[in-house]
Amino acid sequence: MSADNLSRDLYSALCGIPLIDPHSHIDPLAPVAKSLDDILGYHYYTELAHSAGMSHEPLQREVSARDRVRAILGHMGRFDNTVQYAWFVQIAREFLGFTGDKVTVADADALFDAGQKAFAQPDWEKQVLQKSKLEAIFLTNEFDDSLDGFDTRKYVPCLRTDSIVFHLDKPKVRERLADATGVEIGDAQSLRKAIWKLFAHFKAKGAKACAISLPPDFEPFKLAESELDRAIRALAGDSTLAKAVFGGVQFAKSIAGAGHATPQAAVAAGAFWMLAEHCREFELPFDLMIGVNRKVYESGVYQGQDLFDRRTSLIQYRNLFNAFPDVTFPISVLTTGQNQELVAYSWIFPNVVTNGHWWYSNIPAYIRRDLGERLQAVPKTKQIGYYSDAYKLEFVLPKYNMYRRVLADTLADDFVRPGRLSETEAVALGKRILRDNVREIFDV
Amino acid sequence: MSADNLSRDLYSALCGIPLIDPHSHIDPLAPVAKSLDDILGYHYYTELAHSAGMSHEPLQREVSARDRVRAILGHMGRFDNTVQYAWFVQIAREFLGFTGDKVTVADADALFDAGQKAFAQPDWEKQVLQKSKLEAIFLTNEFDDSLDGFDTRKYVPCLRTDSIVFHLDKPKVRERLADATGVEIGDAQSLRKAIWKLFAHFKAKGAKACAISLPPDFEPFKLAESELDRAIRALAGDSTLAKAVFGGVQFAKSIAGAGHATPQAAVAAGAFWMLAEHCREFELPFDLMIGVNRKVYESGVYQGQDLFDRRTSLIQYRNLFNAFPDVTFPISVLTTGQNQELVAYSWIFPNVVTNGHWWYSNIPAYIRRDLGERLQAVPKTKQIGYYSDAYKLEFVLPKYNMYRRVLADTLADDFVRPGRLSETEAVALGKRILRDNVREIFDV
Amino acid sequence: MSADNLSRDLYSALCGIPLIDPHSHIDPLAPVAKSLDDILGYHYYTELAHSAGMSHEPLQREVSARDRVRAILGHMGRFDNTVQYAWFVQIAREFLGFTGDKVTVADADALFDAGQKAFAQPDWEKQVLQKSKLEAIFLTNEFDDSLDGFDTRKYVPCLRTDSIVFHLDKPKVRERLADATGVEIGDAQSLRKAIWKLFAHFKAKGAKACAISLPPDFEPFKLAESELDRAIRALAGDSTLAKAVFGGVQFAKSIAGAGHATPQAAVAAGAFWMLAEHCREFELPFDLMIGVNRKVYESGVYQGQDLFDRRTSLIQYRNLFNAFPDVTFPISVLTTGQNQELVAYSWIFPNVVTNGHWWYSNIPAYIRRDLGERLQAVPKTKQIGYYSDAYKLEFVLPKYNMYRRVLADTLADDFVRPGRLSETEAVALGKRILRDNVREIFDV
Repeated sequence: MSADNLSRDLYSALCGIPLIDPHSHIDPLAPVAKSLDDILGYHYYTELAHSAGMSHEPLQREVSARDRVRAILGHMGRFDNTVQYAWFVQIAREFLGFTGDKVTVADADALFDAGQKAFAQPDWEKQVLQKSKLEAIFLTNEFDDSLDGFDTRKYVPCLRTDSIVFHLDKPKVRERLADATGVEIGDAQSLRKAIWKLFAHFKAKGAKACAISLPPDFEPFKLAESELDRAIRALAGDSTLAKAVFGGVQFAKSIAGAGHATPQAAVAAGAFWMLAEHCREFELPFDLMIGVNRKVYESGVYQGQDLFDRRTSLIQYRNLFNAFPDVTFPISVLTTGQNQELVAYSWIFPNVVTNGHWWYSNIPAYIRRDLGERLQAVPKTKQIGYYSDAYKLEFVLPKYNMYRRVLADTLADDFVRPGRLSETEAVALGKRILRDNVREIFDV
Repeated sequence: MSADNLSRDLYSALCGIPLIDPHSHIDPLAPVAKSLDDILGYHYYTELAHSAGMSHEPLQREVSARDRVRAILGHMGRFDNTVQYAWFVQIAREFLGFTGDKVTVADADALFDAGQKAFAQPDWEKQVLQKSKLEAIFLTNEFDDSLDGFDTRKYVPCLRTDSIVFHLDKPKVRERLADATGVEIGDAQSLRKAIWKLFAHFKAKGAKACAISLPPDFEPFKLAESELDRAIRALAGDSTLAKAVFGGVQFAKSIAGAGHATPQAAVAAGAFWMLAEHCREFELPFDLMIGVNRKVYESGVYQGQDLFDRRTSLIQYRNLFNAFPDVTFPISVLTTGQNQELVAYSWIFPNVVTNGHWWYSNIPAYIRRDLGERLQAVPKTKQIGYYSDAYKLEFVLPKYNMYRRVLADTLADDFVRPGRLSETEAVALGKRILRDNVREIFDV
Repeated sequence: MSADNLSRDLYSALCGIPLIDPHSHIDPLAPVAKSLDDILGYHYYTELAHSAGMSHEPLQREVSARDRVRAILGHMGRFDNTVQYAWFVQIAREFLGFTGDKVTVADADALFDAGQKAFAQPDWEKQVLQKSKLEAIFLTNEFDDSLDGFDTRKYVPCLRTDSIVFHLDKPKVRERLADATGVEIGDAQSLRKAIWKLFAHFKAKGAKACAISLPPDFEPFKLAESELDRAIRALAGDSTLAKAVFGGVQFAKSIAGAGHATPQAAVAAGAFWMLAEHCREFELPFDLMIGVNRKVYESGVYQGQDLFDRRTSLIQYRNLFNAFPDVTFPISVLTTGQNQELVAYSWIFPNVVTNGHWWYSNIPAYIRRDLGERLQAVPKTKQIGYYSDAYKLEFVLPKYNMYRRVLADTLADDFVRPGRLSETEAVALGKRILRDNVREIFDV
């Protein structure tokens, strides 16, 4: 059997495993595309088109969906080398009856029309779920998202907490939090009460994880309750406190070092730690997505403004990992350079597990490298293979296919060909990281 | 067709594409070697020989070229595993009629003599250009280099600006600048005037780029004109200003953080920003070569003293990239660890493009990795594949051959074998990054 | 010949080369296992089992060896994907007559019994040495280890200096040092005298290297003798000195920057520099193992608590490398991200050589990458291929086999298949980095 046949056979076997996708941005009330615009409006396409020369003009609200699709396809020839382009071709082929190998601007109208027809089918959502062998998919819920009106065993709630940690200084966020919980945030105790209520609500609705994305310089630490108190009061309006309390003297060196000598930073630290405490109490894994800087490219397209400083380290999380042995932390890192730390920390800390291939690392070159490292050195029960991060269900299939191809190659090269595993055993290892671990770690 | 045949066919097709080499250190008045000493005097060989045990003695001026060649070849057996050795064997075979597979010290005299004969041919330059299919090659010009006496469409001027940014504190540099422009540098306005004159002159002579190499901790920012003024005056001799003005208080936090609280650092920041403004005005790309520390090994051979601190990030350039959307920044990074940032920043910022494989990353292992990542995630129109960095034209061929081999392997493995491109399409993709983008980005 | 055959032939030829293992933790008076517990008690197994869910309970002293083995094997099914598991299967097959492909908890008793029988053979040590083709192996000796009672040409002493540099603040360490040398440590001069005596003793006993492991933020520099004096006096008990002398003012900026403004840090810097001076005087290489943070996971198993901050750079060692051109520094780095610096610094500095694949980088994925880079760019005479880091001799064989497999693949892919070396030449290159360089660099 040739090398390619082995890899193809493994891929084919892996494709038969039903999926539970542990991270996405699906709207459970509108999980599938309504128009091709919903597909090509995915930020990967708008940002690549913009980066390759497209102005902001076609992205204005007043431009018709058809014209926007044409504009983006009109720039695709400049990035048809990318894996994101390959996802789109596969969507066109799998879901829109497209039979070609390349999509160009000449296909714009035909594809748009095919989309209108396909997406209008009353059972479209069901078709996509079946074709994708997708059993369940995790959501990314703001704390005040409604969790009603959908099957939470299929669309699994997950409490996303970026705004609680990083945006409590915004009156609007505190207002929303008060509306959601009935608790006005004025000090540490009220914040704790509000967070407890959120967790109780989400847990009751079947939430399976708490999640957050973190900037590269974030360093969790336990803030004294009294300092959190004063910090929240400073944020919440008592401006006389800001300077008096947070001049840097009261904070430990580690805080100043990590740039925490502001009320906002103090609240971030305190709120984050409080979330971890509630993950412990409510027995929820805490997904950490580490390393993103927001709004780096100020004139970027929507969701296409974020980049990073690769100089970050999991050593910043040592206090957290030590303080919460009973909380499982599925960790996503933004860059392949962070993967060796993730491997080593997962190999040593019982409560640290590897989680997928995030964003700028979600291309075959990085997945191959990071996955190969993980499979050689991290216990197989501590690896969550992949998540789609999709905004519409149609992306689950091509993204998982990309991952499954890399997984098949890796199993073939590193396990079957060197004689360490049979094909059947290799597929079982694949199933463990694709599916079994998601079930066990998130208790699905 | 076997895997190797595919890769070989692609390589062969890529070798047929005429080259425009967008970065070198060629002297247009002495572009080719005059003796084998000019080849083996390339710092790669002197530093490897020295690192492997050769003293400084054979490098002294009074040693004859023949003896120096013998000394370096005498140490080559200790580094005949390196890719730099492979370049030399190829030069010997392609240009000196050498027919062996290995070069040893026993070949020293024969090769030296063959060199004397070959290099003395009156049409040697033409022969090398033809054999290398080299149409044009960019120079690295000091601001006061003469741009006369050669065909600037073949030897394309490029304004190198390290000395303007980092050495204005040296009276000799200010003198040279005054000689070149007729402007005495005494304040911000006179610096601006001098730089404008340089750009006008270079542009008139057909320059196609401005370029600079930068230390790992450099962080561009816009300095207030008044502060640049005072900084230049401090540098230019008004020593009473140094302490008064640059005690750190007047500088923004970002300056102090980046170690800019000296007049010299302030001038560096101000001059750099001014260069970017002139790139915008004169519509020239600004090549940034990021990450080198000069003179780390103090007793190293000539040009063999520079190393680096890999802890650098493109986040340091966020202000620059945001402030100059109309300037194209072809970015070279020194380490493969920086490549993912380069990929991500090029994928997001329209004005950031990837540029070649620089110096310590210019070996197949790093090129393969970095190129593979770029081809999967950066729009193909935003990738400048390679430059030779050569000091003599004879190096263009072996260095590009090394790159073309890696490019052929990458196209075979990542595009043709997985069925994403046909062979013909793969060669077209290769041509785009080898040639088309150089023409379009630098307007050649 | 198929690709696999080439790689297998090279592997087989490499396996015939007798080994000199330049770094281990072997106890020369108990070099081999006495029970399977000695094998599975290796921290790789205890930490992986613990990370995969095993409590500390089976590791308590009062638990029987047989029960502990059963507990660890009981968790192995959760990490049978790892390369460490593969080492164990190989040990079972090579040394314990095991004939299966997988080891499970069902094999616990049989393997334990087989171990009791095998390890009890009076010539077991000799058998292991012969089977492993191991001629000599370096030890890791505390300064007060006895160097008597064993053949120091087979078990080569090596002075490990972590405690001298980092733990002189502990009275117990100063006491031990006084006992070993007859010198009470009270100032710089007495420390120098004690270190001189240690070196003289170790050198007389056939020591071939001085070694140390260093945290990621360590930055060597030459401390003024008078400051070292005061720092030692502060450590040694004169507490009134601590604040007066080490307020930061007396230290150069680089010291404060690296966090050296404590007596302890000052002593570390001073003692380290002194060790380098003695390496020069006694003509011993100074092995630097760079990048480990101790006790990061506070509740980890014995030797399973250490991790790292990957943000470290060899630029921190520029002063050291420049100051000691006559001392050879074999450098081990903890992460693959540091490898490019190691490649570049070895390529430039005559006194820097690459040394093995340490700890968290000692898995095939990282070895393949790091080795490939080194072989393309570092003089072949400056590369120490591998060391086992073993605590018991039984680990030398499986660990070197892992390395030899990767080496064979690398030679096949990067040298033989591209036509750069014949198979015979490739094996010679392998022998150079596996054996010849160990002999030459350590003068064995």
